[in-house]
Amino acid sequence: MPTPNLLEIRQGVLSKNDHLASRLRQRFERAGVFVVNIMSSPGAGKTRLLEETLRRMAPRYRVAALVGDLATDNDAQRLARSGAPVRQIETGDLCHLEAHLVERHLADWDLDSLEFLFIENVGNLVCPTGYDLGEAARVVLLAVTEGEDKPLKYPSTFAAADSAVQTKADLAEAVEFDRAAAEANIALVNPDIALLYTSAKTGAGMDEWITWLEQCRVSGGLR
Amino acid sequence: MPTPNLLEIRQGVLSKNDHLASRLRQRFERAGVFVVNIMSSPGAGKTRLLEETLRRMAPRYRVAALVGDLATDNDAQRLARSGAPVRQIETGDLCHLEAHLVERHLADWDLDSLEFLFIENVGNLVCPTGYDLGEAARVVLLAVTEGEDKPLKYPSTFAAADSAVQTKADLAEAVEFDRAAAEANIALVNPDIALLYTSAKTGAGMDEWITWLEQCRVSGGLR
Repeated sequence: MPTPNLLEIRQGVLSKNDHLASRLRQRFERAGVFVVNIMSSPGAGKTRLLEETLRRMAPRYRVAALVGDLATDNDAQRLARSGAPVRQIETGDLCHLEAHLVERHLADWDLDSLEFLFIENVGNLVCPTGYDLGEAARVVLLAVTEGEDKPLKYPSTFAAADSAVQTKADLAEAVEFDRAAAEANIALVNPDIALLYTSAKTGAGMDEWITWLEQCRVSGGLR
Repeated sequence: MPTPNLLEIRQGVLSKNDHLASRLRQRFERAGVFVVNIMSSPGAGKTRLLEETLRRMAPRYRVAALVGDLATDNDAQRLARSGAPVRQIETGDLCHLEAHLVERHLADWDLDSLEFLFIENVGNLVCPTGYDLGEAARVVLLAVTEGEDKPLKYPSTFAAADSAVQTKADLAEAVEFDRAAAEANIALVNPDIALLYTSAKTGAGMDEWITWLEQCRVSGGLR
């Protein structure tokens, strides 16, 4: 409705999540692994961007990925082709990942052996926002095919992110994407966000995206 | 977590919603208005499809639209250009519409004067599924740019829909969309669903989509 009771209980769940996330963040920091939480609409290209990111980074860094999905392990299978360790989190009807799911799926992983861990959240521009996963950086994707107005229509996710990665730039012309308008909209809800513009298909912007990740890791994270 | 309490309360909210939705459905049926609940990811083209649908139907039918969004009334403004009555429902942080929101925003509308009412849900492939709005037909959109695997990854929304409208067909070649694979995936989670393939930009498939709506209305709805 939501009734006050539902709100209270939701706040309880969030505060429990925050507590677990804070424990995870300490664990990640001790291990020296830089953790990136990636959010977007379904079909915005999270898996495709990650495939290309893992492929490019794997020769130089120890990288791994956790992939959240309601159903199927298609994405995990795709990412595993990079040779990086990849694990699937099936969420059932849950429209976001939570810290306890991340903690459980990392239980037997040797985090000390990793430098970058990517968490691909469930495809959703609303639900994942409230759930801290202990990440050092939070990234939101905006596919050029989704339109320039999405940052204004889903402001909370863009407001809570450290970088906005525009994806599928190779389709920009076909959909008459107005990059300046999209970036102005993103800046309206989050003036401090880093802006990137990529195509995993052509490779455009991939170097800048990976450089951004490297610089964040060196500077010790954003959260 | 979810804790049992949260589940219980969520079930309470859903059952209250079902009760209101059933009252709405009776009201719609008495008024003779055919109500369509449209769901999709953000940016899949709900507003664009509706713009073109209203434009084509308005000369022959009394049509109207209710538009749900977290923030902004951009979509309502776009749809209002068709000349049809359009009203915005701002949901704040709520990732779906609920029956009480629909009821409240329809309070002073003369439903008897309408033949078709389109409800554009919040852009989300997960949350809206559980919330009946009293609709006669439920439609899910799949943009060709989202990829063929989405029905398998978000099965609940596709399983609960009466038709799946593939959108942005004009981009199919650019993204190498495999229509047969997408339709096979949709059929796997919902063998009875009606399949449509459209481009609001070129007009392809729009006649078939409108014919589907007309036939459903004549046959008295699907729910």
